[in-house]
Amino acid sequence: MILIGEKINSTRKSVREAVANKDAAFLQKLARDQAEAGADYLDVNTGAFPEEEAELMEWLVQVVQEAVELPLAIDSANPSALEAGLKVNTNGKPIINSITAEERKFGKVVPLVLQYDASVLALALDDSGISKTVEERFAVAQKLIESLCGEGVAPDKIFLDPLIQPISVQNDFGVIALEIIRCVKQQFPEVKTACGLSNVSFGLPQRAKLNRYFLTMAMAAGLDCAIVDTMDCGLLDAVKASEALLGKDRFCKNYIKAFRESKGR
Amino acid sequence: MILIGEKINSTRKSVREAVANKDAAFLQKLARDQAEAGADYLDVNTGAFPEEEAELMEWLVQVVQEAVELPLAIDSANPSALEAGLKVNTNGKPIINSITAEERKFGKVVPLVLQYDASVLALALDDSGISKTVEERFAVAQKLIESLCGEGVAPDKIFLDPLIQPISVQNDFGVIALEIIRCVKQQFPEVKTACGLSNVSFGLPQRAKLNRYFLTMAMAAGLDCAIVDTMDCGLLDAVKASEALLGKDRFCKNYIKAFRESKGR
Repeated sequence: MILIGEKINSTRKSVREAVANKDAAFLQKLARDQAEAGADYLDVNTGAFPEEEAELMEWLVQVVQEAVELPLAIDSANPSALEAGLKVNTNGKPIINSITAEERKFGKVVPLVLQYDASVLALALDDSGISKTVEERFAVAQKLIESLCGEGVAPDKIFLDPLIQPISVQNDFGVIALEIIRCVKQQFPEVKTACGLSNVSFGLPQRAKLNRYFLTMAMAAGLDCAIVDTMDCGLLDAVKASEALLGKDRFCKNYIKAFRESKGR
Repeated sequence: MILIGEKINSTRKSVREAVANKDAAFLQKLARDQAEAGADYLDVNTGAFPEEEAELMEWLVQVVQEAVELPLAIDSANPSALEAGLKVNTNGKPIINSITAEERKFGKVVPLVLQYDASVLALALDDSGISKTVEERFAVAQKLIESLCGEGVAPDKIFLDPLIQPISVQNDFGVIALEIIRCVKQQFPEVKTACGLSNVSFGLPQRAKLNRYFLTMAMAAGLDCAIVDTMDCGLLDAVKASEALLGKDRFCKNYIKAFRESKGR
């Protein structure tokens, strides 16, 4: 399971303030903490500053790279900000977060994916928005995957995101996302699947509990990667238990190592 | 989700002693505790006493029925013990636990299922034992379902058990069981699926954690019923969270009711 640490995102108040004040130390601690907790990538986002998003992204990428060696998920809806981050990226091959099947966006982001040999988080939505049925949304996912491959992106560099919406808004939003993950893995076994997890529990009590069980279900459906709070120990426990249960932890070695000493439930 | 309380089983030392000493009060407390914790059925088993299994079953069923009104899962490998329990059963329609595709057993248990209008837990094994591949084991499940229906058992009275074996013994035993559940629900949507849960974690630390996450995955694959420790609060939490995530809890009402007040994670 590939875990992208979600915390360095300017939509979070403390990060927004740190970016506004150019508080490199705060952001670098957040980077190190997530790395130590087990993140494989770190998400970086300066979208809360639309006027100066690109120059802040350039600054933020450099600040984070001074603290950790992890590759980054460069996160913006603005292709110029993506490019600003990619230009200064030196921590290995990044993930571009994100591309969609929206015509204008697709055309601007694909050249960046190719030029920087990046992976790309591909959101299953197009110019008509997010479809409400499995069939329609999978059709968008399929079109997006085929278009990316047609442009020369390798299938294993695509992280298809089914888009998880809150079950508090529509009760079957979780099931729809699970079904898209399963369909993508069946029809495009080389393509990876990824998702932002916490949206599923929006508006409900004890969100960490729901996030954890949904991650387990999504892993069983074939999820390869999640954007998560890597400092949520319960969530990391769920990942380790699920990998063992799904036969992805040879001899349950990692599970046993993690839990042999511990007495808790 | 249908939960069968697993505790009144003579393979457990305290229950074995209580049955041996005819300690009705101990067993009745166990019955009431499981009922209060949310069990839908109570399993009753006297298999630790092969010489007097039938007469002890007759006694045990009566003792439990004095304490609770829940229907029972009458649990024996011995058709005479099943019949002894069924004869004195008055708590609604029982589940017979269990039948298999073993020729001799099948022939002796089917008449009981029909005579007592019972549901039946059907284990996916035949005279050659438990198959190690999804294809072979599903073929046994299919044969068992079709044979039961052929004898006149209604499909919704069959609880097909994929047989869960420990992931510590073979890493993909969990995945095999999940795949059988999914195949049964696809090909026989009216048939229910059920399993004994705790076997999956045999030989590993922190078994409650694994049981909980595996139950979540199995519910996402289509599991209808599990034989569990209903007094494991964490497990019941997993059931409530999973029902909400799978769109089986309208407006997330039960989830919100269970967790609104609680502050824990």
